[in-house]
Amino acid sequence: MSVFTPVTPDALDEWLSNYAIGHLVELRGISEGVQNSNFFVTTSLGRYVLTLFETLPRAELPFYLHLMAHLARHGLPVPAPIADLDNEYLGTLSGKPSALVRRLSGGADMAPDAARCTKVGTMMAGLHLAGQRFGRRQINPRGPEWRAITAQAVRPYLPADEQTLLDTELAFQAGIDTAALPEGVIHADLFRDNLLWDGDEVGGVIDFYFAGNDALLFDLAVTANDWCTDADGHLDTTRTRALLAGYHAERPLTEAEHAAWPAMLRAAALRFWLSRAEDFHLPRDGEMVLVKDPNEYRDILRQRIAAGDALPWLD
Amino acid sequence: MSVFTPVTPDALDEWLSNYAIGHLVELRGISEGVQNSNFFVTTSLGRYVLTLFETLPRAELPFYLHLMAHLARHGLPVPAPIADLDNEYLGTLSGKPSALVRRLSGGADMAPDAARCTKVGTMMAGLHLAGQRFGRRQINPRGPEWRAITAQAVRPYLPADEQTLLDTELAFQAGIDTAALPEGVIHADLFRDNLLWDGDEVGGVIDFYFAGNDALLFDLAVTANDWCTDADGHLDTTRTRALLAGYHAERPLTEAEHAAWPAMLRAAALRFWLSRAEDFHLPRDGEMVLVKDPNEYRDILRQRIAAGDALPWLD
Repeated sequence: MSVFTPVTPDALDEWLSNYAIGHLVELRGISEGVQNSNFFVTTSLGRYVLTLFETLPRAELPFYLHLMAHLARHGLPVPAPIADLDNEYLGTLSGKPSALVRRLSGGADMAPDAARCTKVGTMMAGLHLAGQRFGRRQINPRGPEWRAITAQAVRPYLPADEQTLLDTELAFQAGIDTAALPEGVIHADLFRDNLLWDGDEVGGVIDFYFAGNDALLFDLAVTANDWCTDADGHLDTTRTRALLAGYHAERPLTEAEHAAWPAMLRAAALRFWLSRAEDFHLPRDGEMVLVKDPNEYRDILRQRIAAGDALPWLD
Repeated sequence: MSVFTPVTPDALDEWLSNYAIGHLVELRGISEGVQNSNFFVTTSLGRYVLTLFETLPRAELPFYLHLMAHLARHGLPVPAPIADLDNEYLGTLSGKPSALVRRLSGGADMAPDAARCTKVGTMMAGLHLAGQRFGRRQINPRGPEWRAITAQAVRPYLPADEQTLLDTELAFQAGIDTAALPEGVIHADLFRDNLLWDGDEVGGVIDFYFAGNDALLFDLAVTANDWCTDADGHLDTTRTRALLAGYHAERPLTEAEHAAWPAMLRAAALRFWLSRAEDFHLPRDGEMVLVKDPNEYRDILRQRIAAGDALPWLD
């Protein structure tokens, strides 16, 4: 979706009077985003992004906003939320829960090379390390419980072979013991379009609204499935190793994580197959979501299963 | 002074292992700064400035670091301190209290035009508004008490006419009632070289190590005396009005502030005459401070006294 809820310059300028960032210079809608209405806001003191939350319940928002503030405070290039003159991050605009965040520089790279995969690994390790000291906790909102519920919801719409694939994979994942895997807050959606490159440096990691607590390795698996998958669905060895090496240099991966890597890649593929199948077969009323192809992740899941243990890991 | 205390790359890389910002890529000393040793630090995740505090007592540092964090959290372009993995801003390196802050973009403009003075006024109002909700308090370390003590210390080194000027001005300032002036945390040293321009926008306000609580108008007076003074010591009307207008649009100036403006300009001139005279006549052992000319501010003080009430204010 793009901008759902309109915001007038007058209403925003009035709202900004409870902030310390000057008065409104320019307001412009952003034609991207899946769950929120987003706007570029330029004030007399800087450049910000305004988000009106369209679907997330207000009570869940402090987890995300405080997570971004925590990570920014630890020196990471994430969109730091802006506190108003009451020291609050979350306000109300056009009747919706709303927040301003710092606007970051850069643009996405949809064809990253190995050097950039290394930098993404380094960045992810930084997010995980800083996240270890974050004081709030929320289980991954697209974790095992959500996957089980969503699988039952979409199953009737799938052809027989996909139902079999789904049943088999859910049974396989239910048998995986993740207790030995280091856990923490993960981004859980670090696709290529959620990372801004400013020249050859990471300018920003955005869209934390799927973050939650889970195995840290799951985050790497989500990212490898997007950043390091070739057109035919195979994991590219060079880029995958580069991603893992960048991460490993900051937060050494363990033997247990090596052993769990194939299963995590499957779990991550399953998660996006399911959410896309849900968006496709069970669209929510009035939501203008850009429906992405569920078959892409069904095929990635099939490839990861076929590959067995023959999936790239650290050199 | 420039870099006082050496830092080795190995020691810094080890120190960085308690941060989430990756490993050391480049370390470079900065040949500016008055009280601290400063270094540009590039890591695999970003660009930072490392400061080793050479003169400020460790117990006073949290006020400054938390102030910068507070202002950054409110969306202002100040050097946000970076929290380590223990969530602390202040550490120890080479035996000195040390902190990392985010490196800001831009450079100083020593000949700012009226448009830039307006932007500085806007920025200062933002600092003052956000500062109203800062939870810590410290009186301006270069306020009336410091001025009285320092005047007695430097008085014996001054010629007779300057002693008279000093005595007269101290007596005049002692008679000023500042109770009606809005008070808060002020930067107190926002000279042209402490503001970085990134293109035509304020990229950063730096060097908060003279900040404290005082009349907000004193901050504007310090800044006007530097930004808006012509080569002959007069306040330029256009630039001064531009500075005040930029401020007034965000935090309206009061009648009491209008009345106190000439006295505040004198107090601000006195403060820098005294600190420069102290650095000149009473240099501290081993300190390689760049000594600035005290006479510049003596002459500005004389001009402000001579101008009486005929000093530029809002149009």
